[in-house]
Amino acid sequence: MNLSRLGKPAAFLSALLLTMPVLAAEPPPAVDPAVLARVRDAAMNSDWAYQRLSDLTDRIGPRLSGSPQAEAAVVQVAAALRSAGLQVSLQPAKVPHWVRGEEAAELVEYPGRPDGIVQHLRLTTLGGSVATPKAGLTAPLLVVHSFDELKARAAEAKNAIVLFDVAFDQDLADNGLAGAAYVQAVEYRVKGASAAARAGAVASLIRSVGGADFRLPHTGVMHYDADAPKIPTAALSAEDAMLAARLAAQGAVTMHLKLTPQTLPDADSHNVIADLPGRDKPDEVVIVSGHLDSWDLAQGAIDDGAGVTSAMGAAQLLKSLDLRARRTIRVVAWMNEENGGGGSKAYFEANKDRLVQHAAVIESDSGAGKPLGLQANVTLESVAALHPVTEALRSLGAAAIERRDEAVGADIEPLQNAGVPGFEPLLDGRSYFFYHHTAADTLDKVKPDNLRRQVATLAVLAYYLAEMPEPLPRLPPRKEEN
Amino acid sequence: MNLSRLGKPAAFLSALLLTMPVLAAEPPPAVDPAVLARVRDAAMNSDWAYQRLSDLTDRIGPRLSGSPQAEAAVVQVAAALRSAGLQVSLQPAKVPHWVRGEEAAELVEYPGRPDGIVQHLRLTTLGGSVATPKAGLTAPLLVVHSFDELKARAAEAKNAIVLFDVAFDQDLADNGLAGAAYVQAVEYRVKGASAAARAGAVASLIRSVGGADFRLPHTGVMHYDADAPKIPTAALSAEDAMLAARLAAQGAVTMHLKLTPQTLPDADSHNVIADLPGRDKPDEVVIVSGHLDSWDLAQGAIDDGAGVTSAMGAAQLLKSLDLRARRTIRVVAWMNEENGGGGSKAYFEANKDRLVQHAAVIESDSGAGKPLGLQANVTLESVAALHPVTEALRSLGAAAIERRDEAVGADIEPLQNAGVPGFEPLLDGRSYFFYHHTAADTLDKVKPDNLRRQVATLAVLAYYLAEMPEPLPRLPPRKEEN
Repeated sequence: MNLSRLGKPAAFLSALLLTMPVLAAEPPPAVDPAVLARVRDAAMNSDWAYQRLSDLTDRIGPRLSGSPQAEAAVVQVAAALRSAGLQVSLQPAKVPHWVRGEEAAELVEYPGRPDGIVQHLRLTTLGGSVATPKAGLTAPLLVVHSFDELKARAAEAKNAIVLFDVAFDQDLADNGLAGAAYVQAVEYRVKGASAAARAGAVASLIRSVGGADFRLPHTGVMHYDADAPKIPTAALSAEDAMLAARLAAQGAVTMHLKLTPQTLPDADSHNVIADLPGRDKPDEVVIVSGHLDSWDLAQGAIDDGAGVTSAMGAAQLLKSLDLRARRTIRVVAWMNEENGGGGSKAYFEANKDRLVQHAAVIESDSGAGKPLGLQANVTLESVAALHPVTEALRSLGAAAIERRDEAVGADIEPLQNAGVPGFEPLLDGRSYFFYHHTAADTLDKVKPDNLRRQVATLAVLAYYLAEMPEPLPRLPPRKEEN
Repeated sequence: MNLSRLGKPAAFLSALLLTMPVLAAEPPPAVDPAVLARVRDAAMNSDWAYQRLSDLTDRIGPRLSGSPQAEAAVVQVAAALRSAGLQVSLQPAKVPHWVRGEEAAELVEYPGRPDGIVQHLRLTTLGGSVATPKAGLTAPLLVVHSFDELKARAAEAKNAIVLFDVAFDQDLADNGLAGAAYVQAVEYRVKGASAAARAGAVASLIRSVGGADFRLPHTGVMHYDADAPKIPTAALSAEDAMLAARLAAQGAVTMHLKLTPQTLPDADSHNVIADLPGRDKPDEVVIVSGHLDSWDLAQGAIDDGAGVTSAMGAAQLLKSLDLRARRTIRVVAWMNEENGGGGSKAYFEANKDRLVQHAAVIESDSGAGKPLGLQANVTLESVAALHPVTEALRSLGAAAIERRDEAVGADIEPLQNAGVPGFEPLLDGRSYFFYHHTAADTLDKVKPDNLRRQVATLAVLAYYLAEMPEPLPRLPPRKEEN
């Protein structure tokens, strides 16, 4: 997942207050509970999704938008969904084509440095960054801990490399607030380069956004503001950010930095769309989805291989059970969630006259932890209607509903902003930011049992939303946040 | 630490049986307990050792034998010990000079591979490895799980790259048996290349020896047998070893492997020796030591910056307290523990006529975990004599004695084999092999409080051994194991 879906930290507080079980009156059962239980139990006995995840990660690997691997993933996933008996189409989408180059950083001057010794740092270029000169650049290092400190020390930032040494708060993540921890640290990843550039810096670095201590740099998307020069930007491993900060606290530090990424012309890519047609109202759709692209450092097993294959697995399961709901269940394997949202935009544009026919949208993009329930961007009065879903998932320990007043799932945000109720599974996220956007996001991080539980959660929810006689109430339309 | 000190797994069982508190009769107090308590408390109020560790890691960084950094470390540590008021000398030692080069591996053919896609693996060349051809080599991959399986599949190993996919057993490490876990996995690191070469392989790989899951390859020394061709060898990250094994289980896998290390002529280096002369028997010495060299991937904070600076801190503390024991306390900062033992050999050679004057030897080389007590290679009847030490350390939770019948501490093994009682602090090692020999062995892994406790442990032990009226009984001489 990337930044945009996470909203402001304050939203997490209101979400938290609504995490408690909802004690509203039960509606009459609109969907047979025995069918929901059958779907759940069948999911817990199927490894189809894990096999698809294994194909995606082990046979293809990293799937950054614009890469040959991303296109191979489109082909592979379309074939798998076709084999499952779904109606598959490819939806064209323009996507950025950014390619990582060399990346190296050394501390070449610092207090107490013995003659001839330099310190080599571990780092990763942030997605979308421009390059340094081919031979790199050498500049003094300014370490700051906030945007305010940067403003206060703007004179020192001129012609310097600015390092935002802001730690990810794993204590928050350990307490179920991984998203809040992410939001408060990732602001520097997204906005740091332009803030530093406005102060006259020649490059900008962040401390990696992540909670583990294995010297792994975390990549991710960044944004250049129109009013600032574009300067190269990268994430240091937390260890190397701490090293640089310790040395800078003792005196002047000079860094040599080389980053040679390339931004190529936008590429043609696709969302993969696969329908299980509704038996009664085939024009009304419930989307169940995840994103097919990943960052380029690893297999993208938790971000978002697990999510996209769980969504695929939910539809495959219903098809294999010969369960056709009232409405169409539509799998979308989104392209380009990580660095541009090209797939999301293309879908919205193609469907802007059919928004009212979208009954609900689900995206899974929070990893592969054990499902605990649902995040639901629904009206307050909708919660009671979800009771059959939570009852079906209670035996899996996945009955919590965390109602939100903001979009969940980056790719389905435009649809929610247009009024479509939105869902994302609520997953154990304590270790998600150990691996997120690093080289260690690999298949072994996904426990097959957790993936079965995720398929169960998505399948029960999608079937219920597609089967209930009247769809959930629409959301009040809201503008996209900037 | 490296392999040689760890002996055979069976030794861990006998050590385990002796971990319980020893209930022997107390000898009369040979050394004033109040002085030992004073030493302990002073250590818990000093950050001198942590400052030295910070200097060593942050100002110099990796210190592989033969490198400019290793020589800078000799100069820095000698100056620090001189400033502490000790009598410092440098002892010449010849050391290997091996330099890491490029390292890359890709799976270029495997079942289900889409056209044009290859999988890039993360790996690190093992210390001492020869190089592949400059352009690398391409060969079929044979995955085996034991030496026996290699023998059974010898025909497939011919002209292949052999991967020993043997996992480190973190369950053992979690149960206080990190050493046993290391021994059973590291055998493949040390002996794998020659075993594979005898079967006709063109290169040899292991699954990294370590217990974490952050796609970090662990380096370490390997050994070429005289009767086998020298073939290049490296450690894959655990994740990539698992990936290769999963694909190989489905069909034929071909790998491209490029490793370009160089072995240069042996270099001149030094042990740093610093004496706090005895007040009564200055010719008799108690060594307190750690090793100054490290692997080249990281700062070597836990292996063995923490050990060597704790040993330095113990002597500095006694000097600062104006405590001169009966015998000389000698700090040794060993060079070349990791890949050759050149410093250990040089010391033994220079002192082979003064072995009887070595009353006891201590080396700390198990990281920076909380001290729990002592590992003691002493005679059974010596244990009771250590009672004042364990009583002084009891309030720190470091009163356990694990008696061993094999050498502790690689550098001090020759002295123990010649009869000198040997000690190593017993440290919490549950996370040691998460970081050992990886890029993540950095200063942040060392908690200042644990380092104070380690200094307290070493200072109390060294002072006691140097002060007791009669030295501990000698060990029965034994031959070095092969």
